[in-house]
Parts: sequence; structure tokens; C-alpha cells
Amino acid sequence: MENGTTTTRKIWNFKETEKLESAPNLTIRIILDKLRSCLNTADTRPVIPLCLADPSAFPCFRTTPIAEDAIVDAVRSAKFNCYSPTAGILPARRAVAEYLSQDLPYKLSPDDIYLTSGCIQAIEVLLSALARPNANILLPTPGFLFYEARAAFTHIEMRHFNLLPEKEWEVDLNAVESLADENTVAIVIINPGNPCGNVYTDHHLKKVAETARKLGILVISDEVYAHLTFGSRPFVPMGVFGSITPVITLGSISKMWVVPGWRLGWLVTNDPNDILKEHGVIDSIIGYLNISSDPATFIQSLELSYSQVIMLFDCFYYAKQAFDCVQCVVVGLKNWLRITFACEPSYLEDGFQRLNAFYKRHAKKQ
Amino acid sequence: MENGTTTTRKIWNFKETEKLESAPNLTIRIILDKLRSCLNTADTRPVIPLCLADPSAFPCFRTTPIAEDAIVDAVRSAKFNCYSPTAGILPARRAVAEYLSQDLPYKLSPDDIYLTSGCIQAIEVLLSALARPNANILLPTPGFLFYEARAAFTHIEMRHFNLLPEKEWEVDLNAVESLADENTVAIVIINPGNPCGNVYTDHHLKKVAETARKLGILVISDEVYAHLTFGSRPFVPMGVFGSITPVITLGSISKMWVVPGWRLGWLVTNDPNDILKEHGVIDSIIGYLNISSDPATFIQSLELSYSQVIMLFDCFYYAKQAFDCVQCVVVGLKNWLRITFACEPSYLEDGFQRLNAFYKRHAKKQ
Repeated sequence: MENGTTTTRKIWNFKETEKLESAPNLTIRIILDKLRSCLNTADTRPVIPLCLADPSAFPCFRTTPIAEDAIVDAVRSAKFNCYSPTAGILPARRAVAEYLSQDLPYKLSPDDIYLTSGCIQAIEVLLSALARPNANILLPTPGFLFYEARAAFTHIEMRHFNLLPEKEWEVDLNAVESLADENTVAIVIINPGNPCGNVYTDHHLKKVAETARKLGILVISDEVYAHLTFGSRPFVPMGVFGSITPVITLGSISKMWVVPGWRLGWLVTNDPNDILKEHGVIDSIIGYLNISSDPATFIQSLELSYSQVIMLFDCFYYAKQAFDCVQCVVVGLKNWLRITFACEPSYLEDGFQRLNAFYKRHAKKQ
Repeated sequence: MENGTTTTRKIWNFKETEKLESAPNLTIRIILDKLRSCLNTADTRPVIPLCLADPSAFPCFRTTPIAEDAIVDAVRSAKFNCYSPTAGILPARRAVAEYLSQDLPYKLSPDDIYLTSGCIQAIEVLLSALARPNANILLPTPGFLFYEARAAFTHIEMRHFNLLPEKEWEVDLNAVESLADENTVAIVIINPGNPCGNVYTDHHLKKVAETARKLGILVISDEVYAHLTFGSRPFVPMGVFGSITPVITLGSISKMWVVPGWRLGWLVTNDPNDILKEHGVIDSIIGYLNISSDPATFIQSLELSYSQVIMLFDCFYYAKQAFDCVQCVVVGLKNWLRITFACEPSYLEDGFQRLNAFYKRHAKKQ
């Protein structure tokens, strides 16, 4: 009952947007919010978070003092209170270019670097820049559902290819070829993999690039977990193959520096042949950045510590789950369980014990 | 000439997005970038910036040490390195609610507050949440062209009403009524005005609210310059009239705290009758925030200093210009000149002398 100037039922013109209604309502954040709202608040046992890759709450995962010092110095200097330029401040872009060029056969320029508010905004910018009527994009299953949410919002059709568990989660390149057509603009790969924790060989990455070239599409390489590898296989950036097909790399300081809340990411064009520029994609990226917010300027002062990489944590443990009592579909693959071990070891132990006990209580008899 | 795996001219599927091609390419940032690229680098005279409302580069406009201390403490505590919740952290939302409630006849709840990456992202979120086929929005002339850019990108039709210089830049309410139809979702007002520097009376704001109610639309009140008034007329927030028609207030710490680069803004629902919730607008706002980046978490630690308002600077001096040798259309009104005096006084003096000299050299003879 409203208390306005009239008692008749008022007709209002605004309503929920249909675009958001049609977007898949399944990002990890949304699912987590729903799960949290279902918790029994009378239960005094601590909640063990095995789902959100954010270890920054745990004292054992603290960022380097070098990064903290850089922020404090920038704030105290009062030199970074101003608006940021569209692509980010030059020293920061130069630092990211030099840092990423260490692993590439050519040298990136600061003009290849666009700083964003985390990798999340880099995905937003890129999909907005690629959107046009009838465009479609190739996305991995399992994957990171933020791509699906943003593709739906910008009306880019999604076509899904499988990652192959029996081949260390490699891209099913035959499926990719059969899914693509003349309206396919890009393929997304996530390396190191989220949620699978795999690391691609340079041989497989080259085949991805060659397939993309054959199809006339660019590769979007989500490398937000770059260098966070634990086995003997080294991380190879997709940009190594940027002369075969244009590659746009997305990354951030969130995972490697354990500061997801600082919100600094990047979108990087690995395109020594300037194909993206010739085809107007760079103009579209800059065009969208011009109508977007920027990462906080003083956080861009971190350039001094980009070379001080700390490799602390994270990676996903993705185990074929034996719990036929649990429904698991969030990351796009049915009946697998995604567990992050980016938390205190004692939490992990406790969490696995609880899962085990739950299984024993509820699993169907074979 | 590309140096890839074949020498035939390769066909690529991606190209510039049409959405961005159709967006008006005229935000102040874009114009400034174009002007800067035209500067004669051989000219050693300093450039006087009379266009960008960012005084943070000038030593005379330094933010309060309280704000700097809050950031430094938050970084040193390592308690704000984590991801932010979708709407922002609760203490910060509570602080903004209390701060804004001081000027309202009712009390805002933290659930009315959505923290954003500057007011820019608040505009992005709101227009994305209101977009639907055939929707239109009423925008002021002159105005702040970021609304136009975002409305174009989300395909909301723009209908412009004039602000009336002879009535202290009040909204032409007759024009508003004749422009609106059943697909009109909102009217935007900017108070204190950008670029006009005017401050609306509570009498006029109430008439805006009543007109909006009659039309069944909500009022978007851009109050990014709230309280930055220099005459005797006090700033009145539009939310005072939220019981007449739903009001969404946009604001930020950028102007009042002289820290536009810190990127902390807010979107606030002033809607004591819960009309926006009933009509799904709140769900759309949260839905869009769920697929967006957030302001850096530690910058949200500023809650302690929200009550320490400093009123330092800014406001626009908007003079009917006598230079018929200059084309001025950026803020939407032909042959007026927008000048910010948020810079060192010596710069202002020098800048006006140069404008005067330019006029004398180039003005057409009457």
C-alpha cells in the first residue's frame, strides 16, 4: 500500500529488464549467495569454504609487504588521487608489458596493455567489444560461468565445446571445428584451467592457435592463474602463438598476489601482425573502456612490484566425485565437485571429513 | 602484410562492434583525449586544463589526512584484500546510509545502498538495469554526456528536455510532459548541476517528483556534487521526495573528498513505498551488479571518515561565451563554454588571459 498523493493503484512504466532475466543466473558468486542464505544460523559449527577461490581471509595467505608498501606510498604521495587515463597509467602498462614479455618470443608495448578493474571487467570489456548481431563465441565445458553471463547480456550466442578429462582436459578441437561458422568471433581457453587445474602443453596451445586461424577467429586466453602450477609442466602463455592467430590475454594480480579485492586486471593484445587493429577490434575495446569505470589510480602504482612475483597458493583440486547424493552442475559438468584448497590446511581436513561423513550417511546403496 | 602460416589474404570473422559505432562518441574524456592529441608538442607553454573537473593534481586541493589514514590502515590490516560482496561491504553501506539519511525525512537502510566503482559505474549499472526493448529515458540539455553514451550502448532511446537558463537552469517540465509516453522509464536530473553549476530549490524538486509520478517514471538524481554549493541556497537531495515517486540517487566520494581516482560511488534507492522492489527494478540492479566488477574492497574501509565531510572545491562556471570563433557543443548546448575552476588560481588567471587574447585575434568583426 503506497502513501503517495493518490489512493488509486498507480501504473509505473519501469520493470525488470528482460536482458538480465535471460542471462544464466549461475555465476559462482550467485550460487554462493544462495547457499549462504540457506545456512542454518542456529548451527554453531564454522562454515568451511571450499568453493570460493579467495584465500585472502586466511592469515597463511598474506600478500607481500612490497605490494602493501607500494599502495601506502602511493596514497601518502597524493599523486594518484586523479582520474586514470582510459587504458591505465603509462608506468603501470609498461610494467605489465615488460613482465609478460619475459615469456614471449616478441616484446609487448605498453600500448598492448589495457588495465581493468580485475579480470572480471576485462571479460566485460572484451565481450562488449566483440558483440554484434548473430555473433557467436566458443566456450569450454567445464568453464568459468562469468563468460556465459556476459555473453548472454551482450547477446553473443554461446556454443560449448568439451574439455577432455582423458586427455588432461585438452580442448576437443574436432568439436571446435564443427561448432564454428562464419559468425564465430572467438574461442575462450582458461590456462591454467579453472576449474580443472590442468596446464596446457605448448604443443596443444599451438594446435588451438592453428585451429583458430583456420576458422578466422581470435583466441581469448584467460591466464588469471598464470604461473600458479605445481607439477613439472611449466605454464606457457598463449601469446607465444600470437603470430599464428590474434590472441587476447586476460589476467590480474588477484591470484598471484593474493589480493582479489584490490581489483587490478588487464586485457593484453598479443597480435604482432596488427590484425585486431586492422579489423577495428582495438577501436571497439577503447570505445568500451571510454564508457566504463577504471581501476583505482593508486592501485596502478603497483608497477614497482610486478617483478616481485610471489607464487603462494591456489589451483583447483577437481575430483570425480563419488557422491551420488549431491547434485553438482555449477561449472558446467554434471556430478563433478570443484574444491579449492586455497584455505588453511586444518579447514581442508575438517571439510573432507565432513564430506566423507555426509557421503556415508546419504549415499544410495549400490 | 602478415607473416603467418599462409601468404593468401586471410579472412577474419571479428570486426568493430556496431553498438559502439552507434554510441555518441562525445564524452568529455573522449573529447579531451582528442584535444590532447592535437597539441603542438614543440610549444613549451604549460597547458591550462579548464575542462576536466579533477583538481587532485593541484597541491591546493589535497584530500583530508583522515581519508588517507583510513586507506593506509585498511591495507596494513590485510583484512580488506578479499573479494567484496555484490552490493559492497556492510559497514560501508551502513555508513553511506547514515550519512545520506541526515538530509532525509526518513532513514535509509544499508540495503538501500549499492557501492560502485565511482558514479560512472553507478550510471552503467542503472541504465543496464532499466534497458528493455523500446524503453526511453529523458535527459537534460545541457548535461553529462556519459548518460547518452551508456543509453546508446544499452539501446535505451534518448529524449532530451532543455534546462532553462532564464529560470536558473530549472527543468522545462512542460517539455518533459510532452516528451514522455508509456515507454518512458526515467528522468535524469543533475543537482548541483553539471555543467551549469545551479542548485535546485526544494520547490522545483517537488514539482519534478510530481511530474514524474504523473508520468509513472522514476527520477534518477545525479548528486555527485552534493553539498558543493557556494551561494546561499542549500543543497536538497531529491530523495526527500521519494514518497511521491521512486528516486534513485547516484553519488560518490570523488568530488567532495577530491579523490576521483579512488573510484568509490554509490547507487541509492530512495523508495519508502518499495515500488522499485515490487516492479523488479531492484532485482535487475542486483542482477547487473552480479555480473560486474566491484570497487576495491579496502577503499570501502573509508566508512570511518564519511562523517568528516570536507567541502573544498569545484562547481562550474558556465559563461555565455563571446567567442564566435570557437565551436562549443560538447555538453549539448551550442556556443556555450564550460570552464571548471577546480585548479590553481594562477592557472585560472593565465587561462582567462589566453582566452581573451585568442578572442581578440580571431573574433569576427561585428
